[in-house]
Amino acid sequence: MNALDYPPPVLELIAQLKKLPSIGPRSAERMALWLLTEGKSHSPLLASSLHEAHQNIRCCPDCGFFSQEGLCSACSDPSREHSCICVVEHATDILPIERCGIYRGMYHCLGGRLSPLDGIMPEDLQMDSLLRRVHDHPHCEVILAMGSDVEGDATALYLSEILKPFDCQVTRLAQGMPAGSGLGHTDALTLMRAIQGRTLAK
Amino acid sequence: MNALDYPPPVLELIAQLKKLPSIGPRSAERMALWLLTEGKSHSPLLASSLHEAHQNIRCCPDCGFFSQEGLCSACSDPSREHSCICVVEHATDILPIERCGIYRGMYHCLGGRLSPLDGIMPEDLQMDSLLRRVHDHPHCEVILAMGSDVEGDATALYLSEILKPFDCQVTRLAQGMPAGSGLGHTDALTLMRAIQGRTLAK
Repeated sequence: MNALDYPPPVLELIAQLKKLPSIGPRSAERMALWLLTEGKSHSPLLASSLHEAHQNIRCCPDCGFFSQEGLCSACSDPSREHSCICVVEHATDILPIERCGIYRGMYHCLGGRLSPLDGIMPEDLQMDSLLRRVHDHPHCEVILAMGSDVEGDATALYLSEILKPFDCQVTRLAQGMPAGSGLGHTDALTLMRAIQGRTLAK
Repeated sequence: MNALDYPPPVLELIAQLKKLPSIGPRSAERMALWLLTEGKSHSPLLASSLHEAHQNIRCCPDCGFFSQEGLCSACSDPSREHSCICVVEHATDILPIERCGIYRGMYHCLGGRLSPLDGIMPEDLQMDSLLRRVHDHPHCEVILAMGSDVEGDATALYLSEILKPFDCQVTRLAQGMPAGSGLGHTDALTLMRAIQGRTLAK
């Protein structure tokens, strides 16, 4: 007797779903079975939206955010402050900033961060295009919005060095206590930076 | 200034992924962004495996398990015991039984369970085809492998009634303590059934 298993197309669907981020074998199986039973009508819609997004989504030639054609909706919005460029590691870092609702300027995606151990050097990142944009916008502000880990710090340090010859103000995101956090739950490095970066009480 | 958002095809992909079982808005967004960045090459593979499974997976005409064409691999396996039919609610209940490695017989999927409150009556389930199979296999054993909840119990009770006129032995899965569980963590109903169903110590 052969042990019963799903037919090959089902196994293949499970294998493909398993590659999605944070999807394990159990979730992939549950999703595949759902797509073949209750969610049967949904399966072609998901396939076509995958195809649609894969075909039609490009990188904005100016900032690197997702766009459908030509400039993205940030770069083509005349009401944004073009004199402020927020530099992020990945295109996926932009919406979190946008959602906090306080920033009204432009963006620039590096496409990663410096990590010599992984072989990621300055020429692998969108740095030349950033320098061109800064050059084209004299007196602009460049906000370095990298992560607050070692590679993020190194990337910000490198950028602030190569931006020195340019006519721009370079700032970095504040580091300190996250909102809603107690001192007892804050790690030593965060607390150290919160003390170093302390501001005048209002 | 318009708040920046993803282009429509990205939003559509997120919406479609969000419909998958146990996928919330955050996970759907993370998956969609992964499919558009690191996982870009994976997106067409997922789409084609969805299409492939949707097109080529059928229900086995005998038992209701997934099959590619004609009978499923259980029904077409001559080395299985055709004199034993394990009746399950859903096709997705079969592999868990198969994986425990002890069962070598056939299966029959009802396609659900009786639930008058939800309007699911005997005629909505694959009961006639079960009776036909039992009629065609005299002296067979029918194992009722419904869930151990109210609807599962009601379905098993109903089936054991309508199977009475047939030449078959009807059994039910044992109910009792789950493996590896302590008495302190066992609910009262489970414990009651474990006591009622107690067996002679070996």
